[in-house]
Amino acid sequence: MASLLRLPSRLLAPAAARPAALLRHRGRCLHAAPAARFCAAATTTGASAAAPARTETRGGDREGQVTPRSTDFNAWYTDVIAAAELADYGPVRGTMVIRPYGYAIWEAIQDYLNVKFKETGHSNMYFPQFIPYSFIEKEASHVEGFSPELAVVTIGGGKELEEKLVVRPTSETIVNHMFTKWIQSYRDLPLMINQWANVTRWEMRTKPFIRTLEFLWQEGHTAHATLEEAEKEAMQMINVYTKFSYEHAAIPVIPGRKSKRETFAGADRTYTIEAMMGDKKALQAGTSHNLGQNFSRAFETQFMDESGQLEHVWQTSWAISTRFVGGIIMTHGDDAGLMLPPRIAPIQVVIVPIWKKGEEKGVVMEAVASVENTLKEAGIRVKVDASELRTPGWKFNFYEMKGVPMRIELGPRDVKNRSVVISRRDVPGKQGKEFGVSMEPSTLVDHIKGRLEEIQASLLQKAIEFRDSNIVDVSSYGELKEAIAEGKWARGPWSASDADELKVKEETSATIRCFPFEQPEGEKKCFMTGNPADEVAIFAKSY
Amino acid sequence: MASLLRLPSRLLAPAAARPAALLRHRGRCLHAAPAARFCAAATTTGASAAAPARTETRGGDREGQVTPRSTDFNAWYTDVIAAAELADYGPVRGTMVIRPYGYAIWEAIQDYLNVKFKETGHSNMYFPQFIPYSFIEKEASHVEGFSPELAVVTIGGGKELEEKLVVRPTSETIVNHMFTKWIQSYRDLPLMINQWANVTRWEMRTKPFIRTLEFLWQEGHTAHATLEEAEKEAMQMINVYTKFSYEHAAIPVIPGRKSKRETFAGADRTYTIEAMMGDKKALQAGTSHNLGQNFSRAFETQFMDESGQLEHVWQTSWAISTRFVGGIIMTHGDDAGLMLPPRIAPIQVVIVPIWKKGEEKGVVMEAVASVENTLKEAGIRVKVDASELRTPGWKFNFYEMKGVPMRIELGPRDVKNRSVVISRRDVPGKQGKEFGVSMEPSTLVDHIKGRLEEIQASLLQKAIEFRDSNIVDVSSYGELKEAIAEGKWARGPWSASDADELKVKEETSATIRCFPFEQPEGEKKCFMTGNPADEVAIFAKSY
Repeated sequence: MASLLRLPSRLLAPAAARPAALLRHRGRCLHAAPAARFCAAATTTGASAAAPARTETRGGDREGQVTPRSTDFNAWYTDVIAAAELADYGPVRGTMVIRPYGYAIWEAIQDYLNVKFKETGHSNMYFPQFIPYSFIEKEASHVEGFSPELAVVTIGGGKELEEKLVVRPTSETIVNHMFTKWIQSYRDLPLMINQWANVTRWEMRTKPFIRTLEFLWQEGHTAHATLEEAEKEAMQMINVYTKFSYEHAAIPVIPGRKSKRETFAGADRTYTIEAMMGDKKALQAGTSHNLGQNFSRAFETQFMDESGQLEHVWQTSWAISTRFVGGIIMTHGDDAGLMLPPRIAPIQVVIVPIWKKGEEKGVVMEAVASVENTLKEAGIRVKVDASELRTPGWKFNFYEMKGVPMRIELGPRDVKNRSVVISRRDVPGKQGKEFGVSMEPSTLVDHIKGRLEEIQASLLQKAIEFRDSNIVDVSSYGELKEAIAEGKWARGPWSASDADELKVKEETSATIRCFPFEQPEGEKKCFMTGNPADEVAIFAKSY
Repeated sequence: MASLLRLPSRLLAPAAARPAALLRHRGRCLHAAPAARFCAAATTTGASAAAPARTETRGGDREGQVTPRSTDFNAWYTDVIAAAELADYGPVRGTMVIRPYGYAIWEAIQDYLNVKFKETGHSNMYFPQFIPYSFIEKEASHVEGFSPELAVVTIGGGKELEEKLVVRPTSETIVNHMFTKWIQSYRDLPLMINQWANVTRWEMRTKPFIRTLEFLWQEGHTAHATLEEAEKEAMQMINVYTKFSYEHAAIPVIPGRKSKRETFAGADRTYTIEAMMGDKKALQAGTSHNLGQNFSRAFETQFMDESGQLEHVWQTSWAISTRFVGGIIMTHGDDAGLMLPPRIAPIQVVIVPIWKKGEEKGVVMEAVASVENTLKEAGIRVKVDASELRTPGWKFNFYEMKGVPMRIELGPRDVKNRSVVISRRDVPGKQGKEFGVSMEPSTLVDHIKGRLEEIQASLLQKAIEFRDSNIVDVSSYGELKEAIAEGKWARGPWSASDADELKVKEETSATIRCFPFEQPEGEKKCFMTGNPADEVAIFAKSY
């Protein structure tokens, strides 16, 4: 049995033949279309891999499985979020509870970025979330962009408020209100801050992580003496995001500039990182705005320059949110579930003890504890699942579904040989398995660390190949339509009007995701108008 | 001049004779009484130590100073918050902007507690902040306690909402709503989670950090199979808080149990840590609640026990908030300003370079950079203030006011001698200074680390002595009245009624802060009724 259990779980029950996640058989509303109301009463999704099944189907090997990704990407996404216990629906339409496993991914994002923000000269602070309604109205395009999405507090302490309060959808207005107090002279510049906070946008179409009524993010806000400095800062931060995406999330985002139509409400320029999800739709995964003097003029944020002249400050803002967690889920993964890049995986290695007879348990668990300690001391995030309620086979499936990058199996024979069996999440079947890896601490640590780096690199490489094979260079509107109809991204020279851009959107559902920083050489002609074009743009359907 | 500058700044301008913070002379509303409306329009408090003065009084040595603590404690508190740039008033009444220096103290609190929470088996997660109004009404005493303080969202996306949403004042209700979904069997217990979040309570009397409309906190929530386990958890967490207070914040809190009147709305028992502030008022600095089955009954949070019986879970919740930052400010400090315990100080050591002639600058700054590196590499939080806009004397005052535990002065003569001059914030005058401390890295690091530990221990010791000399043991109501009238805490046997407790409050403004865990031996008679009493209680006026 032990050797059978070691066969990749996929072989035991071919993915395509598997029933979808148990809970979907219980008649619960899970596959809410993005536009549909989150069905709160029916969403006991969190229980999928938890207790009821644990007692009901004890020993069963099918629970915790998900709709194959290749069959139905959206169902797979929803299943994975439920089965891997990443999130659950909150009681209020469109809200989300981020469960420990999902929150740990967010913490990994925070841990990396928080250090980078500080290294690049920013300090954390905190602004109140209640913003006087009048603030929102001060910057014309800002109010236009955000007013349809506002949550408004009208009652406080049992009384109707004199001025309604907006629950922050973003903080530019209140930040500028305070910056105006703090900034007097060029000596106070640059002022560079960041806050980790919740924000609220009354979205009608919601989807866990990707678009929720309330979400968590960081928002950086800076003020500078010159346009050049602000521009440099906005670029610096989009570069921080890009580097994080590539090196940690293994997401090969395409950084670039948004079109005017897609620029942030109140910004002169918006830089973005655009990621291709597993269904080829684009996800705007982070943005950095050069705000120019729009908010400083609206809020009179001025400084005395070195010559004694009063000037308005030049500003930036930039943000990454819990949406990024959704991006990680939808970039990696396969029919069996989630696949997490080791650098942001809450659990990097799961150890599954294997024993049949009671007398084997002692020696196996002793070896397991020793291996666990060795890896922990080496800074590897390791979890032992020694539960006796589940078979090893069930655990293999479960942690594969949860996207844990590596598994260590350890049975009595391994103890005797002072070795372990290792499996890679990203390489299915026998190819991903290594037998007889020495338990000797330094050998094992080096081996595991090496493999984790390989997995990290491999996930990125796979995502790059997927991305590049799904971007089509187009030189006519017809070609664009064809590419978009195939679900791909279209890249082509563009210098047409906002009206043409809107036409593309209306006719194909694709929008300009960005004018990528990386541009082809040579002369270009707009594929829409035939006029000369300076840049190519990338068009795609997006979340 | 260099040697004069090295005299403690206090000697240059005796504290009592100093003008109060500059900004108070500008006629701005700063000393808002706690009950008064925060005066948003007038609160450019953050600018006090920032630019305008920087340009106006360049080189002046008086700026950034504060009302002496001994003269007016409340004015001192407000001045320190403004001058040390800990916080500022938000535009909405009662809200607060936490500035980088204040936020860094909160981050130090987070860093410690976050690790402890994980070590004790809790996972972080995140619940939505919008709670259906009906949830709040489910637990009878909870709604009674919180309904007067609620902020209510009635408009979302431009439309009147069908059900009003409460902005969380605390999350027991929404947590239980979710726990009910996730918990089915005893195997799902204990469920132990924590979230770092903002909360809103529509307070009428506000004071920066101590009581604000919106504040930041962590809230732990756990569910257990038995009352005993819940009780053990509630005690464990109040002990974590107690240990943190003593060992990191150097605040000798008194842990104990709240009286029934003062118990959290919805709890069976509330444990608290009570701290004595510099004005002898008590501050409830953290609480841990044994919720019994109050919320599990209201929300039907049940589990199947090992015998197959359905039972309601037993729960706890526990929290520490940004109020704790206010507690740190008001525990330590002196006439010159803030005094931060090294373990939570954002800057542990400030280095002030001293040079007169241009040719000295190079060698001094080279030595400064080397010392800075040495300390940084040793994990010491160090800041160099090399600004040429300020005199060394001004900097000495400024960083004393900001409560930086240690200062290193470094001039040309020091460079020649390969040594530095060190000052302790907590020991005024010459006694706190050491000359000729070797620059040799390992010697310097050991020396500084040793001194930081001494400062840490000394602040705690001083606070313990202050606390103990201001608690009076009372055996009659008259004695209590006398102690309270003197501003002290009264400790005496208590077994009287809730009505008597209310009477004490009405007649003396003092409340029972707690029945301390540490109780005197022997028989006790209630000082109010003369009846036998099991415990002594501590009474005090409080924030």
